[in-house]
Amino acid sequence: MEKTIKVGITHGDINGIGYEVILRALDHPSVLEFCTPVVYGSAKIAAFYRKALDMQPLQLNQAASAAEARGGVINVINVVGEDIKVEPGISTPAAGQAAFAALDRAVADLRSGAIDVLVTAPINKHNVQSDTFRFPGHTEYLQAALADGTAADTRALMVLCADTLRVALVTTHLPLSQVPAAITREAVLDKLRQFSASLVRDFGVHAPRIAVLSLNPHAGEEGLLGNEEKEIIAPAIDDARSGKILAFGPYAADGFFGSGLYRRFDGILAMYHDQGLAPFKTLAMDSGVNFTAGLPYVRTSPDHGTGYDIAGQGKASCRSMREAIFAAIDIYRNRRREDAATANPLRRQYFSKGNDNVVLDLTKD
Amino acid sequence: MEKTIKVGITHGDINGIGYEVILRALDHPSVLEFCTPVVYGSAKIAAFYRKALDMQPLQLNQAASAAEARGGVINVINVVGEDIKVEPGISTPAAGQAAFAALDRAVADLRSGAIDVLVTAPINKHNVQSDTFRFPGHTEYLQAALADGTAADTRALMVLCADTLRVALVTTHLPLSQVPAAITREAVLDKLRQFSASLVRDFGVHAPRIAVLSLNPHAGEEGLLGNEEKEIIAPAIDDARSGKILAFGPYAADGFFGSGLYRRFDGILAMYHDQGLAPFKTLAMDSGVNFTAGLPYVRTSPDHGTGYDIAGQGKASCRSMREAIFAAIDIYRNRRREDAATANPLRRQYFSKGNDNVVLDLTKD
Repeated sequence: MEKTIKVGITHGDINGIGYEVILRALDHPSVLEFCTPVVYGSAKIAAFYRKALDMQPLQLNQAASAAEARGGVINVINVVGEDIKVEPGISTPAAGQAAFAALDRAVADLRSGAIDVLVTAPINKHNVQSDTFRFPGHTEYLQAALADGTAADTRALMVLCADTLRVALVTTHLPLSQVPAAITREAVLDKLRQFSASLVRDFGVHAPRIAVLSLNPHAGEEGLLGNEEKEIIAPAIDDARSGKILAFGPYAADGFFGSGLYRRFDGILAMYHDQGLAPFKTLAMDSGVNFTAGLPYVRTSPDHGTGYDIAGQGKASCRSMREAIFAAIDIYRNRRREDAATANPLRRQYFSKGNDNVVLDLTKD
Repeated sequence: MEKTIKVGITHGDINGIGYEVILRALDHPSVLEFCTPVVYGSAKIAAFYRKALDMQPLQLNQAASAAEARGGVINVINVVGEDIKVEPGISTPAAGQAAFAALDRAVADLRSGAIDVLVTAPINKHNVQSDTFRFPGHTEYLQAALADGTAADTRALMVLCADTLRVALVTTHLPLSQVPAAITREAVLDKLRQFSASLVRDFGVHAPRIAVLSLNPHAGEEGLLGNEEKEIIAPAIDDARSGKILAFGPYAADGFFGSGLYRRFDGILAMYHDQGLAPFKTLAMDSGVNFTAGLPYVRTSPDHGTGYDIAGQGKASCRSMREAIFAAIDIYRNRRREDAATANPLRRQYFSKGNDNVVLDLTKD
């Protein structure tokens, strides 16, 4: 039997909806059949939210380390002291420290192989900042923390997924005024390569077709509304196609989503955050998952924020968190399957073309 | 009985899906009960498309002017010569001239009162450019052509509408790199005033609540991802509220649409084209209507383009064009109702407050 996948889950901001969505997402027997969850947080805080939300008692197991995690129960590793104060809906420095403590421990366990995949509950990008955490978000932190030093492959790519809809971003957490300068031919090509590789290895799509959105309205209207399409994006698409990546576009974002054209592609590459995420969330509502492609480890998260305004009130939907857990498991399995299938490729076959001058190059595979 | 509303419809680009969606939209007895359509185009081109698309014969009436238009039939005013060549799917200079000829004649009729409202089929922004037409789109041209010289009220505001969803834009056809500089406190406040006034007079919403979207991802994350929210948009919202406009936000675009929050507002003000239109079209699919608010005349259009790729093939949906015709009629009626209701307000009532020093100012109403 295949070993159960160990899913590390960080508690995120303890005053947000993190515990609520984690506990509800895991509070289902079938979830515990698929994986062994290891929550990096606090059994005390979990108990606080369970009571506050009037949930049924849960099978919690306090584990000293991920190695001690047991199957069939929700394992909790305490990363904060007993004296921590929970204040639902309020941003506190203590919550920021607690969020980072969980992330730090989980990342160490991911690197050492003590957990197989990582799912992160939302953090507050303000209270989490410290001398050791100076990043606009999880994606950028993990890119730095999980990089394995093998150049291009360790750059993170933010991918939003729901069912068959997958949206990746060239730029992520950047003020809009800095977006145009960040859209370069190299950046677009680089993200196309990463996205294509991820669609193959992480999602099992073997010849992925990727639609590229434009930067300007109406895809620039042939220069009337901007030249980036002609000068940067279209050449990058040509480059990608020369490299056998099935890239198409650039498409104007509004018509692309409005006409339903998005259904014909395996992936959509958007130029900036709101261009990709506003239509994505409009379509995926509360089932979207954020996946960080391009890292040597699998990390997903729900696509919502801390939800301070509804924290501790039992209003939060756990659907996105549950989808994030399942997506992490799926991607982990897809990677293993793809790696196993391509580990020992047959040597390329050479047939005589009838010419004497064909040189057999045995250094290529 | 109320007089039938005369709806002027320009044929747009003759090689696009314009004729197809116009003829199909009007090819329904109930439409002709609501209005008297006056198509600015060519009876010959209409016959060409009717045959090419294998449509039933239509009741076409060639009228020399809008004054001669008859009820119960589709009136056509010829604005181009008999020798014009139709080449479905191809951009030609002749098509650009024909598009402008229709627009020019229709605008003159709108100004003189020969037609009541204007609905425009899509033009090609390239072939239509000439010495007399140097604009990125219909909206900008009509703003110049229909301005009545009464200052602020003649600035156009692009509003996309579908059922109860109405999205207006602070910036419209602008390269993305020029958007941040165009987002000023004055511009946002100005558009909020226009939008609010339009929701009252054009849509009959008496105390409209308007949601304002942010410029940066995550609404700037309190400065981490940009300062425009704090320094420009939030102050503009405060200004608007001081002027009794019910403005709220700024909201991050992705979460705003993803959470369904958009359903709670009468209008949504987006900062730029794709931010507003990509989610709008995702939601409205093929029923969206583009309305130019802030003009002294009513003008609507379908929210799609020329559709060269499917021109003359019978694939185009006429739903957006039909909705545009109905929206123009609705808005025309709403304006008349609102103007009639507010034409002769009662003089404000003064009651004695028991003080001798109350001064009655009869110059105010």
